[in-house]
Amino acid sequence: MEPARLQFIGVLHGDITSREDAPKNYTESERVGTLEIYPEYQEGLDGIAPGQTIVVLFWLHQASRDILKIYPRGDRSKGLHGVFATRSPIRPNPIAISELKVLAVHGNQLEVSGLDILDGTPIVDIKKKIGR
Amino acid sequence: MEPARLQFIGVLHGDITSREDAPKNYTESERVGTLEIYPEYQEGLDGIAPGQTIVVLFWLHQASRDILKIYPRGDRSKGLHGVFATRSPIRPNPIAISELKVLAVHGNQLEVSGLDILDGTPIVDIKKKIGR
Repeated sequence: MEPARLQFIGVLHGDITSREDAPKNYTESERVGTLEIYPEYQEGLDGIAPGQTIVVLFWLHQASRDILKIYPRGDRSKGLHGVFATRSPIRPNPIAISELKVLAVHGNQLEVSGLDILDGTPIVDIKKKIGR
Repeated sequence: MEPARLQFIGVLHGDITSREDAPKNYTESERVGTLEIYPEYQEGLDGIAPGQTIVVLFWLHQASRDILKIYPRGDRSKGLHGVFATRSPIRPNPIAISELKVLAVHGNQLEVSGLDILDGTPIVDIKKKIGR
Protein backbone atom coordinates (compact mmCIF):
# COMPACT_ATOMS: atom_id res chain seq x y z
CA MET A 1 0.00 0.00 0.00
CA GLU A 2 1.26 3.50 -0.83
CA PRO A 3 2.43 5.43 2.26
CA ALA A 4 -0.13 8.13 2.98
CA ARG A 5 0.59 11.82 2.81
CA LEU A 6 -0.90 14.09 5.47
CA GLN A 7 -2.66 17.36 4.68
CA PHE A 8 -2.04 19.90 7.42
CA ILE A 9 -5.39 21.51 8.26
CA GLY A 10 -3.99 24.36 10.35
CA VAL A 11 -1.36 25.53 12.79
CA LEU A 12 -1.17 26.14 16.53
CA HIS A 13 -0.45 29.60 17.93
CA GLY A 14 0.60 29.44 21.57
CA ASP A 15 3.16 30.63 24.07
CA ILE A 16 5.10 27.39 24.53
CA THR A 17 8.29 27.86 22.57
CA SER A 18 10.63 25.22 23.99
CA ARG A 19 10.37 21.59 25.12
CA GLU A 20 11.66 22.65 28.53
CA ASP A 21 8.72 25.04 28.92
CA ALA A 22 6.10 22.48 27.84
CA PRO A 23 3.84 20.81 30.43
CA LYS A 24 4.41 17.07 30.76
CA ASN A 25 1.15 16.39 28.95
CA TYR A 26 -2.28 17.87 28.35
CA THR A 27 -3.73 16.44 31.55
CA GLU A 28 -1.43 18.74 33.49
CA SER A 29 -1.85 21.93 31.46
CA GLU A 30 -4.06 25.01 31.59
CA ARG A 31 -2.06 26.78 28.88
CA VAL A 32 -4.14 28.70 26.36
CA GLY A 33 -3.63 29.13 22.62
CA THR A 34 -5.36 29.35 19.25
CA LEU A 35 -5.92 26.67 16.63
CA GLU A 36 -5.84 28.49 13.27
CA ILE A 37 -7.64 26.28 10.76
CA TYR A 38 -6.82 27.06 7.14
CA PRO A 39 -9.79 28.65 5.31
CA GLU A 40 -10.21 25.70 2.93
CA TYR A 41 -11.00 23.45 5.94
CA GLN A 42 -13.10 25.91 7.99
CA GLU A 43 -16.41 24.33 6.92
CA GLY A 44 -15.38 21.17 8.80
CA LEU A 45 -15.56 23.07 12.12
CA ASP A 46 -19.34 23.44 11.96
CA GLY A 47 -20.83 22.19 15.23
CA ILE A 48 -17.80 22.92 17.44
CA ALA A 49 -18.81 25.27 20.26
CA PRO A 50 -17.36 26.81 23.44
CA GLY A 51 -17.42 24.49 26.43
CA GLN A 52 -16.81 21.33 24.41
CA THR A 53 -13.75 19.15 24.82
CA ILE A 54 -12.20 18.26 21.46
CA VAL A 55 -9.54 15.74 20.53
CA VAL A 56 -6.78 17.34 18.46
CA LEU A 57 -4.03 15.55 16.54
CA PHE A 58 -0.80 17.48 15.98
CA TRP A 59 2.20 16.61 13.81
CA LEU A 60 5.30 17.07 15.98
CA HIS A 61 7.50 18.26 13.14
CA GLN A 62 10.58 18.65 15.33
CA ALA A 63 10.55 15.09 16.72
CA SER A 64 12.97 12.38 15.67
CA ARG A 65 11.32 9.56 13.69
CA ASP A 66 14.06 6.92 13.63
CA ILE A 67 14.46 5.94 17.28
CA LEU A 68 12.46 3.01 18.72
CA LYS A 69 13.76 2.87 22.32
CA ILE A 70 14.01 5.76 24.75
CA TYR A 71 14.44 6.66 28.40
CA PRO A 72 11.01 8.09 29.31
CA ARG A 73 11.47 11.82 30.11
CA GLY A 74 15.22 11.23 29.96
CA ASP A 75 15.09 9.28 33.25
CA ARG A 76 17.66 6.47 32.93
CA SER A 77 16.70 4.83 36.24
CA LYS A 78 13.78 2.95 34.68
CA GLY A 79 15.69 1.65 31.68
CA LEU A 80 14.90 1.83 27.98
CA HIS A 81 11.27 1.62 26.86
CA GLY A 82 9.86 0.92 23.42
CA VAL A 83 8.40 4.18 22.12
CA PHE A 84 5.00 2.53 21.57
CA ALA A 85 4.78 1.86 25.33
CA THR A 86 5.18 5.61 26.03
CA ARG A 87 3.75 9.04 25.09
CA SER A 88 7.16 10.32 23.90
CA PRO A 89 7.12 12.65 20.87
CA ILE A 90 9.82 10.37 19.44
CA ARG A 91 8.15 7.69 17.28
CA PRO A 92 7.99 6.71 13.59
CA ASN A 93 4.91 8.91 13.05
CA PRO A 94 5.17 11.77 15.56
CA ILE A 95 1.45 12.44 16.01
CA ALA A 96 0.37 13.86 19.38
CA ILE A 97 -3.15 13.49 20.78
CA SER A 98 -4.44 16.29 23.00
CA GLU A 99 -7.82 16.77 24.62
CA LEU A 100 -8.47 20.51 24.66
CA LYS A 101 -11.28 22.65 26.00
CA VAL A 102 -12.85 25.07 23.52
CA LEU A 103 -13.00 28.56 25.03
CA ALA A 104 -14.20 30.48 21.96
CA VAL A 105 -14.78 30.05 18.23
CA HIS A 106 -14.13 32.97 15.87
CA GLY A 107 -14.54 31.81 12.27
CA ASN A 108 -11.52 29.64 11.53
CA GLN A 109 -9.87 30.34 14.92
CA LEU A 110 -10.50 28.11 17.95
CA GLU A 111 -9.32 29.44 21.29
CA VAL A 112 -8.46 26.42 23.47
CA SER A 113 -6.94 25.52 26.83
CA GLY A 114 -4.94 22.49 27.97
CA LEU A 115 -2.00 22.86 25.59
CA ASP A 116 1.30 21.00 25.93
CA ILE A 117 2.34 21.58 22.31
CA LEU A 118 4.90 23.99 20.84
CA ASP A 119 3.88 27.18 19.06
CA GLY A 120 3.90 26.68 15.28
CA THR A 121 3.04 22.96 15.35
CA PRO A 122 0.92 21.76 12.39
CA ILE A 123 -2.60 20.44 13.09
CA VAL A 124 -3.65 17.16 11.46
CA ASP A 125 -7.17 16.48 12.74
CA ILE A 126 -9.92 17.46 15.19
CA LYS A 127 -12.50 14.98 16.52
CA LYS A 128 -15.40 14.86 18.92
CA LYS A 129 -14.41 13.36 22.27
CA ILE A 130 -15.86 10.01 23.26
CA GLY A 131 -14.70 7.76 26.04
CA ARG A 132 -15.19 4.84 28.33
CA MET B 1 6.17 23.28 5.56
CA GLU B 2 6.40 20.07 3.53
CA PRO B 3 3.38 17.79 3.98
CA ALA B 4 4.43 14.81 6.06
CA ARG B 5 4.46 11.25 4.82
CA LEU B 6 3.31 8.49 7.16
CA GLN B 7 5.21 5.25 7.68
CA PHE B 8 2.82 2.38 8.29
CA ILE B 9 4.14 0.39 11.26
CA GLY B 10 1.85 -2.61 10.80
CA VAL B 11 -1.53 -3.93 9.78
CA LEU B 12 -4.69 -5.09 11.56
CA HIS B 13 -5.95 -8.64 11.20
CA GLY B 14 -9.55 -8.96 12.36
CA ASP B 15 -12.94 -10.33 11.44
CA ILE B 16 -14.67 -7.04 10.57
CA THR B 17 -14.80 -6.95 6.78
CA SER B 18 -17.51 -4.38 6.04
CA ARG B 19 -18.60 -1.01 7.40
CA GLU B 20 -22.05 -2.50 8.03
CA ASP B 21 -20.52 -5.12 10.32
CA ALA B 22 -18.38 -2.64 12.28
CA PRO B 23 -19.39 -1.60 15.81
CA LYS B 24 -20.28 2.09 16.09
CA ASN B 25 -17.00 2.80 17.88
CA TYR B 26 -14.47 1.16 20.17
CA THR B 27 -16.43 1.95 23.32
CA GLU B 28 -19.13 -0.44 22.12
CA SER B 29 -16.97 -3.30 20.88
CA GLU B 30 -15.59 -6.51 22.31
CA ARG B 31 -14.31 -7.68 18.91
CA VAL B 32 -10.91 -9.35 18.98
CA GLY B 33 -8.08 -9.15 16.45
CA THR B 34 -4.32 -9.00 16.00
CA LEU B 35 -2.05 -6.01 15.45
CA GLU B 36 0.81 -7.28 13.29
CA ILE B 37 3.71 -4.86 13.74
CA TYR B 38 6.30 -5.01 10.96
CA PRO B 39 9.60 -6.54 12.19
CA GLU B 40 11.55 -3.30 11.69
CA TYR B 41 9.33 -1.62 14.32
CA GLN B 42 9.03 -4.51 16.80
CA GLU B 43 11.62 -3.07 19.19
CA GLY B 44 9.24 -0.17 19.84
CA LEU B 45 6.75 -2.57 21.51
CA ASP B 46 9.04 -3.22 24.48
CA GLY B 47 7.06 -2.61 27.67
CA ILE B 48 3.61 -3.41 26.27
CA ALA B 49 2.04 -6.24 28.28
CA PRO B 50 -1.25 -8.12 28.58
CA GLY B 51 -3.89 -6.30 30.62
CA GLN B 52 -2.81 -2.83 29.48
CA THR B 53 -5.04 -0.50 27.52
CA ILE B 54 -3.21 1.01 24.55
CA VAL B 55 -4.14 3.86 22.23
CA VAL B 56 -3.85 2.83 18.59
CA LEU B 57 -3.95 5.11 15.54
CA PHE B 58 -5.14 3.56 12.29
CA TRP B 59 -5.10 5.00 8.76
CA LEU B 60 -8.59 4.48 7.32
CA HIS B 61 -7.37 3.93 3.79
CA GLN B 62 -10.86 3.44 2.37
CA ALA B 63 -12.30 6.72 3.68
CA SER B 64 -13.01 9.76 1.52
CA ARG B 65 -10.67 12.71 2.24
CA ASP B 66 -12.37 15.53 0.36
CA ILE B 67 -15.70 15.98 2.15
CA LEU B 68 -16.02 18.47 5.04
CA LYS B 69 -19.71 18.18 5.94
CA ILE B 70 -21.62 14.97 6.61
CA TYR B 71 -24.81 13.57 8.10
CA PRO B 72 -23.52 11.73 11.19
CA ARG B 73 -24.13 7.98 10.68
CA GLY B 74 -26.18 8.90 7.62
CA ASP B 75 -28.97 10.31 9.82
CA ARG B 76 -30.38 13.34 7.97
CA SER B 77 -32.69 14.37 10.81
CA LYS B 78 -29.94 16.20 12.67
CA GLY B 79 -28.63 18.11 9.64
CA LEU B 80 -25.11 18.44 8.26
CA HIS B 81 -22.16 18.50 10.67
CA GLY B 82 -18.60 19.60 10.06
CA VAL B 83 -16.45 16.47 10.06
CA PHE B 84 -14.21 17.91 12.83
CA ALA B 85 -17.26 17.97 15.16
CA THR B 86 -17.74 14.19 14.62
CA ARG B 87 -15.90 10.85 14.77
CA SER B 88 -16.72 10.06 11.12
CA PRO B 89 -14.01 8.21 9.15
CA ILE B 90 -14.52 10.89 6.49
CA ARG B 91 -12.00 13.73 7.08
CA PRO B 92 -8.95 15.26 5.37
CA ASN B 93 -6.60 12.91 7.29
CA PRO B 94 -8.59 9.73 8.01
CA ILE B 95 -6.84 8.70 11.22
CA ALA B 96 -8.90 6.70 13.72
CA ILE B 97 -8.10 6.56 17.44
CA SER B 98 -9.00 3.36 19.30
CA GLU B 99 -8.39 2.34 22.89
CA LEU B 100 -7.77 -1.39 22.88
CA LYS B 101 -7.14 -3.93 25.60
CA VAL B 102 -4.01 -6.05 25.17
CA LEU B 103 -4.87 -9.74 25.58
CA ALA B 104 -1.53 -11.24 24.60
CA VAL B 105 1.85 -10.31 23.13
CA HIS B 106 3.69 -12.75 20.86
CA GLY B 107 6.77 -11.10 19.41
CA ASN B 108 5.51 -8.61 16.84
CA GLN B 109 1.85 -9.68 17.22
CA LEU B 110 -0.46 -8.01 19.74
CA GLU B 111 -3.77 -9.71 20.36
CA VAL B 112 -6.31 -7.01 21.31
CA SER B 113 -10.01 -6.52 22.01
CA GLY B 114 -12.30 -3.54 21.46
CA LEU B 115 -11.95 -3.31 17.69
CA ASP B 116 -14.24 -1.27 15.43
CA ILE B 117 -11.78 -1.21 12.51
CA LEU B 118 -11.81 -3.14 9.23
CA ASP B 119 -9.49 -6.10 8.61
CA GLY B 120 -6.44 -5.00 6.62
CA THR B 121 -6.32 -1.43 7.93
CA PRO B 122 -2.79 0.04 8.26
CA ILE B 123 -1.51 0.93 11.74
CA VAL B 124 0.16 4.32 12.22
CA ASP B 125 1.01 4.51 15.92
CA ILE B 126 0.61 2.95 19.38
CA LYS B 127 0.74 4.97 22.62
CA LYS B 128 0.38 4.49 26.32
CA LYS B 129 -3.07 5.54 27.56
CA ILE B 130 -3.33 8.58 29.81
CA GLY B 131 -6.45 10.48 30.71
CA ARG B 132 -8.28 12.96 32.84
